[in-house]
Amino acid sequence: MTDVTELTVGVFGGTGPQGRGLALRWARAGIDVVLGSRSAERGEAAAAEVRALAGDVRCRGLDNRDAAAAADVVLVAVPWEGHAALLESLRDELVGKIVIDCVNPLGFDKQGPFALPVAEGSAAQQAEKLLPESRVTAAFHHVSAVHLADLSIAEMATDVLVLGDDREATDVVRALADAIPGMRGIYGGRLRNAHQVEALTANLIAINRRYKAHAGVRITDL
Amino acid sequence: MTDVTELTVGVFGGTGPQGRGLALRWARAGIDVVLGSRSAERGEAAAAEVRALAGDVRCRGLDNRDAAAAADVVLVAVPWEGHAALLESLRDELVGKIVIDCVNPLGFDKQGPFALPVAEGSAAQQAEKLLPESRVTAAFHHVSAVHLADLSIAEMATDVLVLGDDREATDVVRALADAIPGMRGIYGGRLRNAHQVEALTANLIAINRRYKAHAGVRITDL
Repeated sequence: MTDVTELTVGVFGGTGPQGRGLALRWARAGIDVVLGSRSAERGEAAAAEVRALAGDVRCRGLDNRDAAAAADVVLVAVPWEGHAALLESLRDELVGKIVIDCVNPLGFDKQGPFALPVAEGSAAQQAEKLLPESRVTAAFHHVSAVHLADLSIAEMATDVLVLGDDREATDVVRALADAIPGMRGIYGGRLRNAHQVEALTANLIAINRRYKAHAGVRITDL
Repeated sequence: MTDVTELTVGVFGGTGPQGRGLALRWARAGIDVVLGSRSAERGEAAAAEVRALAGDVRCRGLDNRDAAAAADVVLVAVPWEGHAALLESLRDELVGKIVIDCVNPLGFDKQGPFALPVAEGSAAQQAEKLLPESRVTAAFHHVSAVHLADLSIAEMATDVLVLGDDREATDVVRALADAIPGMRGIYGGRLRNAHQVEALTANLIAINRRYKAHAGVRITDL
């Protein structure tokens, strides 16, 4: 199994709830975390918040380009609207690196959430197309940002579906899920099956609204 | 809560593993089950198998048209290839009735399973279009047919996402899930969010192949 505490994980969108929540949990698990932002100052401000919450951890902020260069693995947790532009801008820095896409292309109207059509099939496949020399995976779509941020919740009690066509890369990403207490990384299929995993977030939001919950997913019989 | 033992549930595709498995579990739960088939003889032969396995239960076979007429609620568990033709042929019999679509439009190639594109968005939305006077829901996509058929498994230990735009109808379908020990029916969003629930079956099949399991889904924090 990969020793993930030897990795540096870059987080894009670390100022948003999903990115910051995962950065917080990874830092607490002993992983070196670098938060990327449009400016190094904003990245460092977000990192300072993580350090204030998590204590003596390795978490620093850089601008996106420097964060990409510093990281072994990156998590893409930016809003869908900025997804393509960010990845295009970091193509060179991300050559050969493992990219974890957790972006959910969703729309909202009076009837609630729904999945947006994506020309490439899914956000993850868009990433694969824009980063042909990176090792693109998809994971962490269904993890509650509210639960991640609440350190009184010691065990995350949820599974993470990890998709990708590169076995070694999905194994590393699974290990990054396993590093967070209560979380379990499960291989969830090839990248061409990412659309439904991203889109299922619309269903989880509908569940959250109906049941006033922060729903996640567990896979049974494993 | 709906008393589902007062309902007659029709099952189309009751000679296939998913339909037969759910018929078996519902019959054991005290529900009156009618298996529809192209011929009454084949339907009755499948019903005789259910009775042989399940003991003193109410399960009979009819041809599809008579089964639709006899049922209060119907489960559509036919292969995707025959989905549209079957529903078109039963439009009149299904007026005003609750229809549960559990069909997963999937393809398979050398790289494994994948979701097929559906012009209407999903099998469930195709059903809604073909049956404008029925109350169409989508549910039971992720239940292992192997586990359903194995009566040594007393508790199904899985959740069923129930989708639809008619609250009373989704409540009845949820109650039909709750009637099977260990199973829990959870409202999972509007019918327009059915595609990803159907397509997620491709991921569960990929999981089954990797882990040699019969994977299902539980929703956490509920």
